Amino acid sequence: MTINLSLQQPAIDNVWVQEAVARLNNLTKPLGSLGRLEEIAAFMCGWQQSLQPKTEKAYTLIFAGNHGVTAQGVSAFPAEVTAQMVANFEAGGAAINQLCEAIPSILRVIPLSLEKPTTDFTTSPAMSADECAAAFQIGVDSVPQDADILVIGEMGIGNTTVAAALAYGLVGGNAADFVGAGTGVDEAGKIRKAEVIEKAVALHKENLSDTMSMLQHIGGREQAAMAGAIWQARALRIPVILDGYVVTAAAATLTLASKDALQHCLAGHLSVESGHKKLLNFLGLQPILNLNMRLGEGSGAQLALAIVRAALATFTNMATFEEAAVAGKNI
Amino acid sequence: MTINLSLQQPAIDNVWVQEAVARLNNLTKPLGSLGRLEEIAAFMCGWQQSLQPKTEKAYTLIFAGNHGVTAQGVSAFPAEVTAQMVANFEAGGAAINQLCEAIPSILRVIPLSLEKPTTDFTTSPAMSADECAAAFQIGVDSVPQDADILVIGEMGIGNTTVAAALAYGLVGGNAADFVGAGTGVDEAGKIRKAEVIEKAVALHKENLSDTMSMLQHIGGREQAAMAGAIWQARALRIPVILDGYVVTAAAATLTLASKDALQHCLAGHLSVESGHKKLLNFLGLQPILNLNMRLGEGSGAQLALAIVRAALATFTNMATFEEAAVAGKNI
Repeated sequence: MTINLSLQQPAIDNVWVQEAVARLNNLTKPLGSLGRLEEIAAFMCGWQQSLQPKTEKAYTLIFAGNHGVTAQGVSAFPAEVTAQMVANFEAGGAAINQLCEAIPSILRVIPLSLEKPTTDFTTSPAMSADECAAAFQIGVDSVPQDADILVIGEMGIGNTTVAAALAYGLVGGNAADFVGAGTGVDEAGKIRKAEVIEKAVALHKENLSDTMSMLQHIGGREQAAMAGAIWQARALRIPVILDGYVVTAAAATLTLASKDALQHCLAGHLSVESGHKKLLNFLGLQPILNLNMRLGEGSGAQLALAIVRAALATFTNMATFEEAAVAGKNI
Repeated sequence: MTINLSLQQPAIDNVWVQEAVARLNNLTKPLGSLGRLEEIAAFMCGWQQSLQPKTEKAYTLIFAGNHGVTAQGVSAFPAEVTAQMVANFEAGGAAINQLCEAIPSILRVIPLSLEKPTTDFTTSPAMSADECAAAFQIGVDSVPQDADILVIGEMGIGNTTVAAALAYGLVGGNAADFVGAGTGVDEAGKIRKAEVIEKAVALHKENLSDTMSMLQHIGGREQAAMAGAIWQARALRIPVILDGYVVTAAAATLTLASKDALQHCLAGHLSVESGHKKLLNFLGLQPILNLNMRLGEGSGAQLALAIVRAALATFTNMATFEEAAVAGKNI
């Protein structure tokens, strides 16, 4: 199986963005005073090619995987927690279940061969090229054709180390700047994580210059699947809200295929994981929320969906100055 | 009429906060990983004295007033816009109407003698002590007894200058640091605003050391009413979400009566108005959102209500580690 990432992807439609801005500037509020909400509304119009952009059909896709690198003692929780949390998602007990009720969205959980962790990438590639392509394709196939918007999240014990390896491999600099506490390791654990990603990036350095190869060597199955889903969403003009560090790192690998591959993505929130800020800066993405969160599961992105919906509610339903007979600016 | 602010007010109940923290630490997530959502959940438990805090009965109260200081050319919009926007609120065309539909809340608009602007406070007190007390009492009376949570917002052409005067009067320092573009004045307008608040605070400096006197001399009717509503909410143990600069400045006057008068308040968002950050720091409040907004009308606080609701959804409905049979931390 081969994944072809050289296909031309659709772009934001600036004609609709301009139409949206024209409407925004006529609504009963001082010019630009809804700030980020106005940017989000114009972004949604540009992707959906409509002045009535929708989020009714929102899907929250959670990709789960297991990682051989946990053998290096990089996580505070045992690897079996990945499958236990997938069961918790399916039983409705996790944070993301409650958030998908509070901020309505259809939750789909996509476990990727949890019984078969990737190989420890400090010694070998995380998986074969075929395994990586298969995981990517599962992501592609997971995107509902009728989605108005996608929220992308993940679960995988050890995967903040995978995110750190990908981010460090992409951005460069100091390995220690890309590691954080994850689910809760101490300072010694963080030093271990930095050593692990330094070793992994050095070992695989000849194989980190294209998306699929990078995902295969220092990624994981849920990372490949998330990249696939985000790539496919772009093909279908579906806007995407990225969750925290792990999702953003998986998404970022797509920029090796096309510099603007994430044009259709919003950064849902800024994670506590310190590497996330560096990575968002590298990608030129501004997080919508900053709530000191570091859970994953799509939780931060799901909260951002409430902001996107509110932005569209104002955009679609506010009166213009003329409709409301409100006087304009006098100086 | 006299307002008595020396009455003992109820405080957050730390027994319920501790109970909330104990529950949070058993939910299926790494310790503290929901960040601000966890703090908000514990705050709500502490005020409502319950492990099932509610926000179903949310009320959004918008106080509107007119200001004599507009004679100084401090606003980009003419003063009649206040009444026109109140009509827009009543007709359902403003941003806050859409946000109260998207994030359900009962909207109440409380116009305060719009036909009778306050006096220009660069020359005389903004109003008489009786007028100020009457406006404060309207605020007190506007708080529904059955509210689970209140969102406080405002509308009033010229009132970012009033906010700046109050904030500068409370915090001190450099007048220019407390003025911003408001609805959209240029650099010359900002300089005028700084001169206006400098003059007002100098003129009334002997009368700025208690809440009612400060509101009377350099406040406005909607400021006095907002202070009254926030004071009354505390008496009823109703948590409050403050909107931007204008609401926060009105709320801040209460700290002259009692240093911790805003213990029951959340700062909904950080406004673009630069004085807001200084004022929040002075009050020790951390804004929930930062979306580059500067509209008023309670819009930023209303968005924060969605975050508060989501916080309670996770707190109330998530499974514990035991319930979900998920393994705990191993290192």
